[in-house]
Amino acid sequence: MTFADWVADLPYNTMLELGGVFFAALSGGLAGVRKNFDVFGVLVLAWVVGLGGGVTRDLLIGVNPPVGIANWRFVTTALLAGVAIFFLHPSMARMRRTVIVLDAWALGFFVLLGTTKGLEAGAGPLASVMVGVLTGIGGGILRDILVGEVPLVLADRQLYAIPAFLGAGIAAALWTTGWLNLWTQALVVLLVSGIRLVSLRLGWVVPSAGPGWSG
Amino acid sequence: MTFADWVADLPYNTMLELGGVFFAALSGGLAGVRKNFDVFGVLVLAWVVGLGGGVTRDLLIGVNPPVGIANWRFVTTALLAGVAIFFLHPSMARMRRTVIVLDAWALGFFVLLGTTKGLEAGAGPLASVMVGVLTGIGGGILRDILVGEVPLVLADRQLYAIPAFLGAGIAAALWTTGWLNLWTQALVVLLVSGIRLVSLRLGWVVPSAGPGWSG
Amino acid sequence: MTFADWVADLPYNTMLELGGVFFAALSGGLAGVRKNFDVFGVLVLAWVVGLGGGVTRDLLIGVNPPVGIANWRFVTTALLAGVAIFFLHPSMARMRRTVIVLDAWALGFFVLLGTTKGLEAGAGPLASVMVGVLTGIGGGILRDILVGEVPLVLADRQLYAIPAFLGAGIAAALWTTGWLNLWTQALVVLLVSGIRLVSLRLGWVVPSAGPGWSG
Repeated sequence: MTFADWVADLPYNTMLELGGVFFAALSGGLAGVRKNFDVFGVLVLAWVVGLGGGVTRDLLIGVNPPVGIANWRFVTTALLAGVAIFFLHPSMARMRRTVIVLDAWALGFFVLLGTTKGLEAGAGPLASVMVGVLTGIGGGILRDILVGEVPLVLADRQLYAIPAFLGAGIAAALWTTGWLNLWTQALVVLLVSGIRLVSLRLGWVVPSAGPGWSG
Repeated sequence: MTFADWVADLPYNTMLELGGVFFAALSGGLAGVRKNFDVFGVLVLAWVVGLGGGVTRDLLIGVNPPVGIANWRFVTTALLAGVAIFFLHPSMARMRRTVIVLDAWALGFFVLLGTTKGLEAGAGPLASVMVGVLTGIGGGILRDILVGEVPLVLADRQLYAIPAFLGAGIAAALWTTGWLNLWTQALVVLLVSGIRLVSLRLGWVVPSAGPGWSG
Repeated sequence: MTFADWVADLPYNTMLELGGVFFAALSGGLAGVRKNFDVFGVLVLAWVVGLGGGVTRDLLIGVNPPVGIANWRFVTTALLAGVAIFFLHPSMARMRRTVIVLDAWALGFFVLLGTTKGLEAGAGPLASVMVGVLTGIGGGILRDILVGEVPLVLADRQLYAIPAFLGAGIAAALWTTGWLNLWTQALVVLLVSGIRLVSLRLGWVVPSAGPGWSG
């Protein structure tokens, strides 16, 4: 493939998607470093968090083989993030705030893209919303299972899945009504990332079902 | 879709299947409550246990997208069970015996339905038996992995998978010989649930391979 | 199916593949015995480690239903290994060295076969390499998750995934250039198994990202 082919093959939002993969993969690699995994384990975790949600999405909507194993750009991007974390993690640790902001942005982008890919594959609005949410949160769930921890998104009461559902629902509604364009897509990403970051800042949490709450 | 369409679209055993999803999802939601998951985690566990086995089945036999993410009735039923558990779990805790009976019934129903769906999708008798058993026990395995525990069905020596295999095998034999009808289907469900409940009552267990047993 | 059909249906490398499944399944069953799982749990772990990598491969390249649930020879072979381990594990424990050698050989064989099956299914070189590596290491990852441990392959610094990647890459290159034949296939298996065993013998490890190493 020549470089011209490569550029011609590049949809307008692929650069953004690669950015999302990179930042999500950073967080995966970091989890591997924290668990003292070896270099291969760090690369696997980077790949799983950057692309595992998308692979799950492609399996559910019937895309074979999933882009997360078939597309050079995606695989290379995730592995580069793993290599970067492996060598640079002491300085990354000081960038905790940056990582959280980038991760929130990746969440919004993955949810939007997962939902629209589902709709384009003919999966129906409900399935596409489910697939969009899974694209956003699936990588993190796989990461936590691989490092032997209970998935954070299920237990930590933070607003992570809620904005994901909201964004996927709005994206599906916009697509169905024909109002999905570059600007409304940007709004969906901003909304998801914004709710995530504002809720972190203000300490908003969702209830858990402990005896003190419901009893 | 009008209500008339909805009814016309409803196979004779869909009400039973929704019942199975609901009771399985209750047990999933309860596992989330016990781990002090937040409301989203409880809903996810309800969905995973109610529909995760069926999603696995659909992936294996090539149904895209799986009904567990694409069908409103199924998704809503599982989530309703999660909401019910979230608000009512203190009283649910007193209904432990009822939950066990309903769970045994859901096992029998899931195994029957998983096996016949496999056969109808052209998956062959062996694959359909495997898929039927996975439909029955897969949700519980996913539940235990998500809450960070070793899957009960692999370790606790109870008769859970054995009746599932037996039921799936009989269902596949009946289908192959053309004897599968409403009555023989009911017998399969009764057999699976019955063995499960009688074995619980009488304390039947299968051997484990501990040093004391194998010498 | 008559016995003649069965033989006619047998590709030249199926006996070798069944051998790989058997030895991998032995290691799975052994993990179940060590965790004191019941007989069903031991059989499931034998099946998961013998065939789980291949089922993942088939899902990713779109083979429905996966041979790991649809092919009598494969399923029976894995379950026989589980039964053997269940009854014979005290003597197996004395054969630790043999098990390691057979497992290294199974790794090489699974990687070769996973990669070529991906290429034959039209999955492209990159996807086929990823699928080949997953076929080789996926069963062990699933085993560790099911017994509640962090996957060894990600953390223990041994050369396990590295020879898998190398072998998958070489197999894909040979296939693309038309040089893949019985002899080059044997060389790929020897290379993967050889690196694995030599590195074990000589204590070669890959770096981990601990503070002592990168700091």
